[in-house]
Amino acid sequence: MATPTTGRPTPESIFNLFNAFQNTAALRTGIELDLFTAIGEGANTPPSIAAKTGASERGVRILCDYLSILGLLTKEQGHYALGQDAAVFLDRKSPACLASMTGFLSGPWHQRNFNLLTEAVRKGGTAGSEGDNTKPQDEVWVAFARSMAPLTIPAASFIAQLVGAKEGKACKVLDIAAGHGMYGITVAKQNPHAQIVAVDWPAVLEVAKENAQAAAVAGRYTARPGSAFEAALGDGYDHVLLTNIFHHFDKPTCEKLMRRVHSALKPDGRAVTLEFVPNEDRVTPPTAAGFSLIMLANTEGGDAYTFAEYEKMFRNAGFAKSALHPIPDMPQQVIVSEKAG
Amino acid sequence: MATPTTGRPTPESIFNLFNAFQNTAALRTGIELDLFTAIGEGANTPPSIAAKTGASERGVRILCDYLSILGLLTKEQGHYALGQDAAVFLDRKSPACLASMTGFLSGPWHQRNFNLLTEAVRKGGTAGSEGDNTKPQDEVWVAFARSMAPLTIPAASFIAQLVGAKEGKACKVLDIAAGHGMYGITVAKQNPHAQIVAVDWPAVLEVAKENAQAAAVAGRYTARPGSAFEAALGDGYDHVLLTNIFHHFDKPTCEKLMRRVHSALKPDGRAVTLEFVPNEDRVTPPTAAGFSLIMLANTEGGDAYTFAEYEKMFRNAGFAKSALHPIPDMPQQVIVSEKAG
Repeated sequence: MATPTTGRPTPESIFNLFNAFQNTAALRTGIELDLFTAIGEGANTPPSIAAKTGASERGVRILCDYLSILGLLTKEQGHYALGQDAAVFLDRKSPACLASMTGFLSGPWHQRNFNLLTEAVRKGGTAGSEGDNTKPQDEVWVAFARSMAPLTIPAASFIAQLVGAKEGKACKVLDIAAGHGMYGITVAKQNPHAQIVAVDWPAVLEVAKENAQAAAVAGRYTARPGSAFEAALGDGYDHVLLTNIFHHFDKPTCEKLMRRVHSALKPDGRAVTLEFVPNEDRVTPPTAAGFSLIMLANTEGGDAYTFAEYEKMFRNAGFAKSALHPIPDMPQQVIVSEKAG
Repeated sequence: MATPTTGRPTPESIFNLFNAFQNTAALRTGIELDLFTAIGEGANTPPSIAAKTGASERGVRILCDYLSILGLLTKEQGHYALGQDAAVFLDRKSPACLASMTGFLSGPWHQRNFNLLTEAVRKGGTAGSEGDNTKPQDEVWVAFARSMAPLTIPAASFIAQLVGAKEGKACKVLDIAAGHGMYGITVAKQNPHAQIVAVDWPAVLEVAKENAQAAAVAGRYTARPGSAFEAALGDGYDHVLLTNIFHHFDKPTCEKLMRRVHSALKPDGRAVTLEFVPNEDRVTPPTAAGFSLIMLANTEGGDAYTFAEYEKMFRNAGFAKSALHPIPDMPQQVIVSEKAG
């Protein structure tokens, strides 16, 4: 339940905050039962939705009511329909469907680490027994690569545009901690003269290679398995993509990585960073600012850094200047950093 | 993070719903560190709050930012203060403090059962290995009795007023599934001529007896350990209190209990039911309607019943008429049912 915004304090908002985890569970269950697709296909009552999803009528009725309260469904005269977010992002027949994200965002490591949040606040970093999630953990990062690709669509197009992919000039692009590889692959799809080099741990790069194959850019896609901090990155790159990586590390580690990126770029090359970048107050905008807690729970020293912090780190690493570009409708922003001034 | 209410669908709202469980974790951690009390006592920066709570500055800064995003704290020029909900309900020095609720609402059984929500929807009832939470489970219900008393204050006063406690007439009150006992105890405190009989499982009644002692009404407080369905309830009661019990059961079971209540009442006696009562649409008001999912996850056949459903069940059990009374600022309502018309 959303916290009610009554003017006066009531126990109800606290009660609902205690129960906020139930919203996550309801979304995950709707996805696991593929209930949104069933409703998108026309099932609109508990019996018809139950028949399509193999669930009980009683369970479906209660879940659909809850999803209606959350705004994912609408309910009129006992008939359910998809709300606009669900129609676009949760129906598997929608090209923008994000349902696969449940594989990463609902992974057991998140719940485990957030169950230890009190200890993480005491300590100032993750209290998870697996330690920092910046270590090679195939369980986590293959799940990431397999799950999160659909979420990249708006940002990947935005980045491809920022690097002038449609102009079609020959260029070399390095994709650091590529994951699913979709950022580099999107550049390659839009620019037939782009060569992509992807760095990530071996098991994760297998997913990126599959995606490059599926996008018919495998011939211009080179995998360099290894850590972004240790693998030979090569050099002479026009662009280096750093998508959702800095937030895992403390500032000295970010600077260290950015110095490697600086060396790998051509003299007029640019680093392109995708990140959750809160305002200086660190409490707005909410999703970018709130991302910091995810890093506290999951990493030793990661954070959602402000633009001023990034600008300084990147300057320390040798970059002449950086500029911030908001992405329409996304909680992340892009920082373009020029090697030369 | 609250789901943003932009007009157009964005991935951000889905992303935030996947992460809603983090709001629960942040609240729980704030309570476990007693951070709200520390801020209430004047600590207002990460170093001073860290010193008072024994936590790290970095962890405190990130947690306080997150709690500010949630609206529990405010942040101005890097200084935190309690938001109005936190000041009233989360500072342990506030008489209305609800912090102890974390003992029940954050109990491991809730997370366990919600982790099995998909199976519960398939089955139409709890998939928890402990089975239905209506069985005598001391772990759960002693935690309830120890944790939830502060939340009863508004409803207990409302109920005491409904049963005319301040008029001070001699009366016998039966408190079914008394838990912490606060509903009956509040009547006894306001009416020195009220005799209270409390029914619950033995370990739970120990908590009620402690509370009766603390309220100086133990001399008029009788414990009858056992199940509400099997214990000898006695008879000749003016009022029977049924607070937050029916939602655990299916309709035939509710009727069965209400027939026992009918027998226990004097001819002009009244049953007083406290419940989450959604409107006929079952999706409003949000907290009462959403309570149904909690019962799906935790019980075999419980639900948040509408007033029409209660009215019919209670009529079937012999009650002449029932009337619904909303409680100001609370998500629950009171149903007063008259044995005779």
